[in-house]
Amino acid sequence: MAVIDFLRSRREQNLAELIEYLEIPSISTLGIGVEEAAGHLAGLMDVAGIEAQILPTEGISLVYGEVKGPPDAPTMLIYGHYDVQPADISEGWNSEPFEPQVRDGRLYARGSGDNKGQHFAQIKAVEAYHQTNMKVPINLKFLIEGEEEMGSPSLRKFIQSNKELLTADIACSSDGSLHPSGRPTLSLGCRGLLYIELVSHGVGKDLHSGSYGGAAPNPFWRLMEAVQCLRDGEGRVRVPGFYESVLPVGEADQDALEGIPDPETELQAVIGEGVSQIPELPAFYKKVLTQPNLNICGFQGGYSNDGMKTILPGSARAKLDFRLVVEQDPDKLFDDVCSFLKAEGFDDIEVRKMATFDASKTPADNPYVQKVIQAVAGYGDEPVIYPNFGGSVPDSMFTRDLGLPSVWFPLANADSNAHAPDENIDVEIFHRGCEIAATLMGGLA
Amino acid sequence: MAVIDFLRSRREQNLAELIEYLEIPSISTLGIGVEEAAGHLAGLMDVAGIEAQILPTEGISLVYGEVKGPPDAPTMLIYGHYDVQPADISEGWNSEPFEPQVRDGRLYARGSGDNKGQHFAQIKAVEAYHQTNMKVPINLKFLIEGEEEMGSPSLRKFIQSNKELLTADIACSSDGSLHPSGRPTLSLGCRGLLYIELVSHGVGKDLHSGSYGGAAPNPFWRLMEAVQCLRDGEGRVRVPGFYESVLPVGEADQDALEGIPDPETELQAVIGEGVSQIPELPAFYKKVLTQPNLNICGFQGGYSNDGMKTILPGSARAKLDFRLVVEQDPDKLFDDVCSFLKAEGFDDIEVRKMATFDASKTPADNPYVQKVIQAVAGYGDEPVIYPNFGGSVPDSMFTRDLGLPSVWFPLANADSNAHAPDENIDVEIFHRGCEIAATLMGGLA
Repeated sequence: MAVIDFLRSRREQNLAELIEYLEIPSISTLGIGVEEAAGHLAGLMDVAGIEAQILPTEGISLVYGEVKGPPDAPTMLIYGHYDVQPADISEGWNSEPFEPQVRDGRLYARGSGDNKGQHFAQIKAVEAYHQTNMKVPINLKFLIEGEEEMGSPSLRKFIQSNKELLTADIACSSDGSLHPSGRPTLSLGCRGLLYIELVSHGVGKDLHSGSYGGAAPNPFWRLMEAVQCLRDGEGRVRVPGFYESVLPVGEADQDALEGIPDPETELQAVIGEGVSQIPELPAFYKKVLTQPNLNICGFQGGYSNDGMKTILPGSARAKLDFRLVVEQDPDKLFDDVCSFLKAEGFDDIEVRKMATFDASKTPADNPYVQKVIQAVAGYGDEPVIYPNFGGSVPDSMFTRDLGLPSVWFPLANADSNAHAPDENIDVEIFHRGCEIAATLMGGLA
Repeated sequence: MAVIDFLRSRREQNLAELIEYLEIPSISTLGIGVEEAAGHLAGLMDVAGIEAQILPTEGISLVYGEVKGPPDAPTMLIYGHYDVQPADISEGWNSEPFEPQVRDGRLYARGSGDNKGQHFAQIKAVEAYHQTNMKVPINLKFLIEGEEEMGSPSLRKFIQSNKELLTADIACSSDGSLHPSGRPTLSLGCRGLLYIELVSHGVGKDLHSGSYGGAAPNPFWRLMEAVQCLRDGEGRVRVPGFYESVLPVGEADQDALEGIPDPETELQAVIGEGVSQIPELPAFYKKVLTQPNLNICGFQGGYSNDGMKTILPGSARAKLDFRLVVEQDPDKLFDDVCSFLKAEGFDDIEVRKMATFDASKTPADNPYVQKVIQAVAGYGDEPVIYPNFGGSVPDSMFTRDLGLPSVWFPLANADSNAHAPDENIDVEIFHRGCEIAATLMGGLA
């Protein structure tokens, strides 16, 4: 296939261009480099034959691009983000995060895997069609935002205000990471999220534990009671109705779960010895992908670092995330948690809603989804199919707001260290990503 | 009195010299400036007529100084420390912490109250005797260490190896702070400390709560159970024997407690509205000064800062401090806590000893103590007498290792913000401190 051959002939140049893109430190949370990155990205799209515009949102502008395919061809909406997490070499990087470096077959740079390397591969796939004088076989709409690392605060409003612009037949977003085996990976949804803080108020100001300990109340005692009240001895959430709407795992999902290959060796590499504390397949994936959960992310208040400090905290907070399945509504759950704690006598505990994400789910038997699966399989390896991600992505904006089937199609290696030091993309996986993206566009036609 | 008059005539110069001393950022925990500060301090002592030496310890050197009084005069051992807490203007200071600034009658600088301003006042008291051609009426031994902010790791060994050098009749250390009323303040001991960490081990590496939540165990659940196991519903420590050796508050202590004036207005200023959660006098002082207590300083693991991060902690720690009365042995308590948790089934919880301080207590009816009290009273205001501090100071090194009666005699204002931004010493209180120190030396003769 000419397009694939072309991409193979351009590997060196594509990598060099990706490195240029990664040199821009587009850190949305710090408000730096995002305009430069948006301009650079629009330029990359133009060169690839994608008609690009920088469109305003209520926050940081996004880059929108279009490719017209043949008449009556289906339309694919590609989502990604050009902003990256903050990074500093002092956090444990082996090279400067914004001076990309190739070592042992990996390209190390902030944003290499999350997410510049991934939407860049999609762009290069389009370019390959144009450079080989072939029309792109489907219509494409690129929606690359600059606020993902801030929690996408402006995206939903943009999508809701631009439904016509974004009309499509399927959303196909490249973010997240491949199964540890490196096989092509597709996910058909995600768990939802309710992130809350429970706040126990003490005297309001941190005090010396010597001068006040025993006289001033310590808010952590009460906070622990409230947190523990949310769970029973078996680890099940006690909030009434929590499990009511959760459907049993269907046959198709069960098959999908059983089809996910064992990541054991890779888990071992990530987790080390602790891997023995994690259930085996397919129970691991069943729990992580299809069951809701309450997690303690941490406690805030007093002293939380290495070593010691004698302090009596003026207030204390617990940071909790609920992961939810598609039948659970995070906003309703927040109300339920508030009511439950009140009913259990915790009027003194403040409950703060920090973030919500709707869960989402796209049926595997949707004809466009089937075409995507077959197209990817046609490239080589049988794809790994997750009924959904365990994490939370803005997928419901596509499934609910735009009414689209939505497939997540990551193009970065599982050990890409997203959000961590030494973020990287496997160079071979990057190049194959360009080819798979081109194959997928062809297969959807 | 000539000495007092002299000190009054030298206020401007003394303040200027203190400022020079405070400009040296002697931060022991960071290992900076301590040698320069020790040299500067020895120089200050020499000028004041104190024979100073810089003596090695196993860690940072200390400054030792001697003044010979008349034959048969009693000997007073003065303790202090020339090291300071770390400080950076970004933490909320209104001026650079090592560029001292006087504003509204206060001298703002790291170390101004804790502790340079305090032992500097003692040195200036000696200087006043010499400058007015009067012999210092007692023998003095200064022991000013450079490791207090690290927990005095080398001091006990130094004292045990130098008992002859340190022979004295009474220890009289200026550290801590005055009663909020500003009245001269004496304390006759301190509560002890056992600082521990409980560690609950999870998989050993922080994981993404979306990708692993529900499958990997969260160590905070178990940690909370262990922490709560240490206390009963009434807030009493459940470790067997904890209260066994605690004696009822004796009559002398009860009188002393009732004699401590109400710090309500000042507490209001420090704590604000939360003050309503603190018991009234004398119950407040009874609890803080004469009762043991278990305090939660904080939890470590996962995410502990503002905002949110979705994380499943690889391990979790609770930082706990026990405050102890003089009858309780912190090392024995540590063993008891370990045995108790094991007996309650918490074999999986690691218990780490982080620090211990012995409690101490000097009888108020000791004749030297009575002389100190009368000398201070002679200066003007009746002193406030605490049976002991609520906090923990290395007092048992004087009472137990050297067998001395020991009085703590703070010379900094209660709102001096020790260890916090905008540390300061009230300039009037500093000058009065020099005068009270001189008066005390005279009264002990």
